[in-house]
Amino acid sequence: MARSVTILGAGLVGSLLAIILRKRGHTVTVYERRPDMRKAAIGAGRSINLAMSARGWKALDLAGLRKDMEALAIPMYGRYLHQADGSAAFQQYGKNNEAIYSVSRGELNKKLMTLAEDNGVTIHFGQRCTKVDVTTNTIHLQDPDGTEKSVQADLLFGADGAFSALRHSYVHLDRVNASQQYLEHGYKELTIPPLPDGTMQMEKNALHIWPRKNFMLIALPNTDGTFTCTLFLPFEGKPSFDKLQTKEEVLAFFKEQFPDAVPLMPTLLEDFFENPTSALITTHIRPWHYKDKSALIGDAAHAIVPFYGQGMNAGFEDCTVLSGLLDKYGDDWTAILNEYDNKRKPNGDAVASLALMNFVEMRDKVADPAFLERKKIEKELGRRYPEQFVSVYEMVSFSHTPYDTAMQCIEAQDRLLKRIMSEGDFFAKAEDSTFGVKLDEWMKEYHTAVQQLDFGNETP
Amino acid sequence: MARSVTILGAGLVGSLLAIILRKRGHTVTVYERRPDMRKAAIGAGRSINLAMSARGWKALDLAGLRKDMEALAIPMYGRYLHQADGSAAFQQYGKNNEAIYSVSRGELNKKLMTLAEDNGVTIHFGQRCTKVDVTTNTIHLQDPDGTEKSVQADLLFGADGAFSALRHSYVHLDRVNASQQYLEHGYKELTIPPLPDGTMQMEKNALHIWPRKNFMLIALPNTDGTFTCTLFLPFEGKPSFDKLQTKEEVLAFFKEQFPDAVPLMPTLLEDFFENPTSALITTHIRPWHYKDKSALIGDAAHAIVPFYGQGMNAGFEDCTVLSGLLDKYGDDWTAILNEYDNKRKPNGDAVASLALMNFVEMRDKVADPAFLERKKIEKELGRRYPEQFVSVYEMVSFSHTPYDTAMQCIEAQDRLLKRIMSEGDFFAKAEDSTFGVKLDEWMKEYHTAVQQLDFGNETP
Repeated sequence: MARSVTILGAGLVGSLLAIILRKRGHTVTVYERRPDMRKAAIGAGRSINLAMSARGWKALDLAGLRKDMEALAIPMYGRYLHQADGSAAFQQYGKNNEAIYSVSRGELNKKLMTLAEDNGVTIHFGQRCTKVDVTTNTIHLQDPDGTEKSVQADLLFGADGAFSALRHSYVHLDRVNASQQYLEHGYKELTIPPLPDGTMQMEKNALHIWPRKNFMLIALPNTDGTFTCTLFLPFEGKPSFDKLQTKEEVLAFFKEQFPDAVPLMPTLLEDFFENPTSALITTHIRPWHYKDKSALIGDAAHAIVPFYGQGMNAGFEDCTVLSGLLDKYGDDWTAILNEYDNKRKPNGDAVASLALMNFVEMRDKVADPAFLERKKIEKELGRRYPEQFVSVYEMVSFSHTPYDTAMQCIEAQDRLLKRIMSEGDFFAKAEDSTFGVKLDEWMKEYHTAVQQLDFGNETP
Repeated sequence: MARSVTILGAGLVGSLLAIILRKRGHTVTVYERRPDMRKAAIGAGRSINLAMSARGWKALDLAGLRKDMEALAIPMYGRYLHQADGSAAFQQYGKNNEAIYSVSRGELNKKLMTLAEDNGVTIHFGQRCTKVDVTTNTIHLQDPDGTEKSVQADLLFGADGAFSALRHSYVHLDRVNASQQYLEHGYKELTIPPLPDGTMQMEKNALHIWPRKNFMLIALPNTDGTFTCTLFLPFEGKPSFDKLQTKEEVLAFFKEQFPDAVPLMPTLLEDFFENPTSALITTHIRPWHYKDKSALIGDAAHAIVPFYGQGMNAGFEDCTVLSGLLDKYGDDWTAILNEYDNKRKPNGDAVASLALMNFVEMRDKVADPAFLERKKIEKELGRRYPEQFVSVYEMVSFSHTPYDTAMQCIEAQDRLLKRIMSEGDFFAKAEDSTFGVKLDEWMKEYHTAVQQLDFGNETP
């Protein structure tokens, strides 16, 4: 039975969800706070580019958009590290040349909106949802001129981002657990343009990182030859955004910390003082749904920090899972939303933790040679023991293993790698047969430890 | 310079704060959501009686109310344990006959309101605050008939409890961290009346507990000869409130679990089905204040579960601390609210954790003979080494040691007591001189470990 579905938010997840539900025959109406980004030049949200990985691509398949987006996506095969001592290092992400893909948030969003409309979805722009009466499913909307109206929803999805109106309305229900935590770090976007002849100024197929322990600069490639750089830095303390108030202070800081980047950024000072310093939030809420009436999806359910590049991927995977449950339960929306909540909530929590942990990895650990060595060993283990070992990074970025399962493998992998590395140079003794026997034993032990976990259809 | 102070909430903390600020010459206006409880018979909030301890008394001194309340307070010198096997045990709280005091929430609140008004505080009843525009300090109020008005505040305090409107308004400010977590357990109040001749049916000067691992019943004495009982039980699962739907189910559950209590509760079934099942929330928020304009206090800043009997005590201590900062900083409200926030926030977090931990102690650990033995040893250590050892329970209930410091002593005390108890029967070998030497050594070690902590003016 087709339902009348209302979606709050025409961002990436809202638009994709609209397509999936419309293709299944439901009537779909979307209310979006911002004006139509295809007509007005507006900011595309909190970051200009995204890192699309396996979970994202899988959901784009559902929408039939993979081909279109592949043409616009730049593969990044690893991290290009600009170390503090001036040296550089490249750390490959996968053992089989896998990549994560730099994609323009704006382009992807526009395509999703157009595809949604082409399929018969109605999108109303400039409609800010101020609150939802959850028990009656009444949505309160506000026009740009302040006019208020209310709309009655049949089935409602809140895909309205980290500051979701539906989420805030859930918070006032009985026995709802909720939290919002900001990072002490803020971020600011900067840019590296191409040379006059169009040549990119750094290696194109990599995610560039300047790891500086408590802060970092990163850069992702764009199809127009630019790199979008993002500085992650504490709001207060030393160094901090608070301590960078004058042009002299900013320039001195960049020259000291990122000397190789400064010559590549002709508009550094303009960018720094024109672009906002933004905050980074992590949110949790339980439950994610209300009866068969409404549910949260994407950032609205689990806003996370961007350091694993999994925000959009996790939101898209919510859509994939929901789509699978529609196959499983048909019209039984009580069952669908119940299982969606039970299945996705632990994974939302897990990806939030993984993203926070990866911040430490990116800004600090990758500057440590021992850590880079460990990454190399992980890849070699994956090659030698393909049935037994997949690194956590690979599980998160290149597989569909539940995030929660990936999280649960961390401890066992830490123990395993610690053992291996305490034996000395792994690659030097890789052919040593005594070591080989020991290694086989340890791998078996590791595999037994993680085998009982839920890997979905993936290899443990 | 006298300021015009607005307080949201005329509960225990709001009324006490009003008195303290009025006595210092400020104009004080209070807006209270409920009608005047001195005129209408209404519920006094979430529990009928409270356990007043050292921090609460100290704040009542500031208001000049200690004498009045002492006349109405019933000392409870320890826990009277009604074990599952039918045996009983008494576990004394302090080593010097200290007590916590059962006090009527309603009586205390009425006295505080009257004293506030006698001192020139204006209290407006039936005024529900719906939200606060924090940056402009504009308060939105709603009459019982739905009429809305807004009031401009100079200096604003949110003493409006766990679901504080000021707190909810803070949540929308930039970079505010906040969380709300419900316990899986709910609670329901029941009653044990006196005998027809007025005699109380159980030991008067104790806090009665029926510890049953994952749930418990407790009872506190009242001056009218009754006991207020509270059943703490999971909402769902087995056993749970969910599984107690019929009179037969309730009676069977009580007869099986609390056979000695059933004959004392003639209105058990009426109470059970008439009284609500309520939820238990813990909240955190950071910051607790906004510039020199507003601050949260009491449950509005740190709603906690009731198991350490510290909710009111912590809120009253907030008032004591604030009062001290008024002495220290005079009219500099930026400094006052800043230091109030910095000083109290870690203690709010600590008392929230202590309260959650004490639930496990009350419902589960006190049924374990080894735990009761440990409590006896702790008291003996306090007697023998008064300069070196105070138990965490004593710090929390009988001292003014910051909650955060008490929290930080837990690990060192656990280590110490584990060592002592691993040596066998403490009281049997208490006179053994070899053991005495060892014990002296351990106590010195413990004392060194905790000595660097901030005990305020108390003995570490």
